[in-house]
Amino acid sequence: MDQTHTDRDALARASAALLVQMRAARPLVQVITNFVSMDIAANVLLAAGAAPAMVHAPEETPDFVRKAAALVINTGTLSAPAAQAMDVATAAARTHGVPWVLDPVGAGGTPFRDTTIANLLRRRPQVIRGNASEIMAVARIAGLTQAAGAPRGPESTHDTDEVAELAQRLARHALCTVAATGAVDFVTDGRRHVRLANGSPLMTRVTALGCGLTGFIGAMLGTGAQAFDATHAALATYAIAGEIAAEISDAPGSFRVAFIDALYRLDEQQIFDRLRCL
Amino acid sequence: MDQTHTDRDALARASAALLVQMRAARPLVQVITNFVSMDIAANVLLAAGAAPAMVHAPEETPDFVRKAAALVINTGTLSAPAAQAMDVATAAARTHGVPWVLDPVGAGGTPFRDTTIANLLRRRPQVIRGNASEIMAVARIAGLTQAAGAPRGPESTHDTDEVAELAQRLARHALCTVAATGAVDFVTDGRRHVRLANGSPLMTRVTALGCGLTGFIGAMLGTGAQAFDATHAALATYAIAGEIAAEISDAPGSFRVAFIDALYRLDEQQIFDRLRCL
Amino acid sequence: MDQTHTDRDALARASAALLVQMRAARPLVQVITNFVSMDIAANVLLAAGAAPAMVHAPEETPDFVRKAAALVINTGTLSAPAAQAMDVATAAARTHGVPWVLDPVGAGGTPFRDTTIANLLRRRPQVIRGNASEIMAVARIAGLTQAAGAPRGPESTHDTDEVAELAQRLARHALCTVAATGAVDFVTDGRRHVRLANGSPLMTRVTALGCGLTGFIGAMLGTGAQAFDATHAALATYAIAGEIAAEISDAPGSFRVAFIDALYRLDEQQIFDRLRCL
Repeated sequence: MDQTHTDRDALARASAALLVQMRAARPLVQVITNFVSMDIAANVLLAAGAAPAMVHAPEETPDFVRKAAALVINTGTLSAPAAQAMDVATAAARTHGVPWVLDPVGAGGTPFRDTTIANLLRRRPQVIRGNASEIMAVARIAGLTQAAGAPRGPESTHDTDEVAELAQRLARHALCTVAATGAVDFVTDGRRHVRLANGSPLMTRVTALGCGLTGFIGAMLGTGAQAFDATHAALATYAIAGEIAAEISDAPGSFRVAFIDALYRLDEQQIFDRLRCL
Repeated sequence: MDQTHTDRDALARASAALLVQMRAARPLVQVITNFVSMDIAANVLLAAGAAPAMVHAPEETPDFVRKAAALVINTGTLSAPAAQAMDVATAAARTHGVPWVLDPVGAGGTPFRDTTIANLLRRRPQVIRGNASEIMAVARIAGLTQAAGAPRGPESTHDTDEVAELAQRLARHALCTVAATGAVDFVTDGRRHVRLANGSPLMTRVTALGCGLTGFIGAMLGTGAQAFDATHAALATYAIAGEIAAEISDAPGSFRVAFIDALYRLDEQQIFDRLRCL
Repeated sequence: MDQTHTDRDALARASAALLVQMRAARPLVQVITNFVSMDIAANVLLAAGAAPAMVHAPEETPDFVRKAAALVINTGTLSAPAAQAMDVATAAARTHGVPWVLDPVGAGGTPFRDTTIANLLRRRPQVIRGNASEIMAVARIAGLTQAAGAPRGPESTHDTDEVAELAQRLARHALCTVAATGAVDFVTDGRRHVRLANGSPLMTRVTALGCGLTGFIGAMLGTGAQAFDATHAALATYAIAGEIAAEISDAPGSFRVAFIDALYRLDEQQIFDRLRCL
């Protein structure tokens, strides 16, 4: 456990309280995400209680982003126009003080993706959320290691423990919260950290649930919460919804349906009863 | 009630008959829609009994649209290439006499979106379908009011009653049918109007069901029906499918599944038994 | 039956064995597909046991494709940038010896689409998979017939028997395996052929299940299997999953869910018990 939350119960209570607060605020979250995740990311945000808006045109993003409570950027299905849209959006977010979250899908996969991510890092995201290989690759892009994360398409080839130390260095270097998610989720702001152990392996058999998670972090951040708190609350509650869904369904088609239902219905007691920290 | 349909039963019978006619005709509906709605809009049209075709390239749209029974244009996830695709498609639809429907997603949200919608209005859609804030914004774009609709991303901040009078003026001005949808749906061709009161709040918790509805109006229009009749029939039957789904499911993941099933199975008796007009 | 597989049992055993092999190898499949199918195609591949990666930018495809076990190209929602992405990707696949599959969605629909498909044929796909009208149109594009397939958007207006002879000529001409799918699936490498008769009409009521099937052929091909074997194995197992799903569900919303579940759970015994050849 980290220094701030001295026990599991405090973390569970904080997560549950932030979920309640987010649902009451219903934050408008602007999402620039990949084409695979458009449907599920919007449905995750609606089920969780936020108001998603997929807006990406450079022509309108500066007008739109200032109305948003948070911005979410995801580098999957990247293209040159998408990279430009992300550049314009993150610049506008900085100008207007809108917090933003980076999901560096496929970091380390190609030079084009790494260059795009390097440019995005300069815009100082409040949170970076990826799998272990992606976080390792981002640390390399930031000049903190020579070791290249070697993702396999969108999938990780590393586990969370391998990247914990590097995630902490990345968080200190980039002055943000870093979350490396997997069977165990590791969240750090460089000073504090938590390891969360809820979830289900079926979550990796439904496409873009990770992209949905990053959107959900954006929703939590849209309440005005600190990045570290928003991130662990989002990760904890999302994984608990996954765990509940896996008790209802054991195959990915019905699991996806059950997951959206569980996220919609998730209450404070479930979070308090189920949260597991390592 | 409007002047033509003197009672609820006549409206229900007309809606049911048009659904049967549409399923028999299986109209080819060309859809240029946003990336969030691609999956659900296609699945809604297939479940309803139409044949959707998502075709948007300016290079092929003029060749394609003349084979279509109707064209549907949706301004979500707008971009400059998408705006150009819409321009080419609506011009071709006009040339070939193909009826078309406008879903002005996010109208009033940014100048870029409003300019695009202003250009589309010049192509004279047969139907405009949006939430109350979007219809208010379209009326402003058309020069009929100073009051700006202030949508919150894709969500309405107004209810249908606030926009009824403006919708009628817009319908007369643009010589089309206007539908403002919400808890109550208001449909008018400037002369007649109906208020429909079926549906479920869960419909707003599944992304892009509104986009799917606009596609469904296109399918009804593809039968050759008059715009006003096609629109109220689509709205009535869609909302009834939503109501049936809400009796099966109380959370958005399973609701989406139940909704598609209900739309597929919807029969004349259900429409007759359930339609509610105000 | 064809010359190699002398009976249904041998075909069933070969299909089941290849599915097991594919799941063990978990091949990375690069998919350039249309926007409608992004979600379902990725979910089909994950459920089947492969690792999908939707990567399309010309800037990164040459770096990415050489890591992939197979490449899948789908011409739905075509655009000039997408055509360029396909050109770059298929060139890189040829250079690196990565097998690739063509799904000529909408072939015969417009000159723009036919030109794009003509260019792709020059890159020598290992497999072409389409509905009967699309395969007929590809044969025309390849100069083998005057008769134009006349698809109705993404839907076929011909049945498999009408195209069997032309599919064999196309396979010989293009030196590849050709699959025309429908109520009966016809697969040929120009020398051998099989007719497969599993499946359910509900598969045509869920959007982009055909696109998902082509992705699944890519996954089977990613094991290193011969194109003809990979194709009939994919078609057989996919249709059997559809058949199982249709025993659970009779409407397209729940059918889609049941189909993904069935594909995930599919085992060798089910394939052996259910495979039907004509």
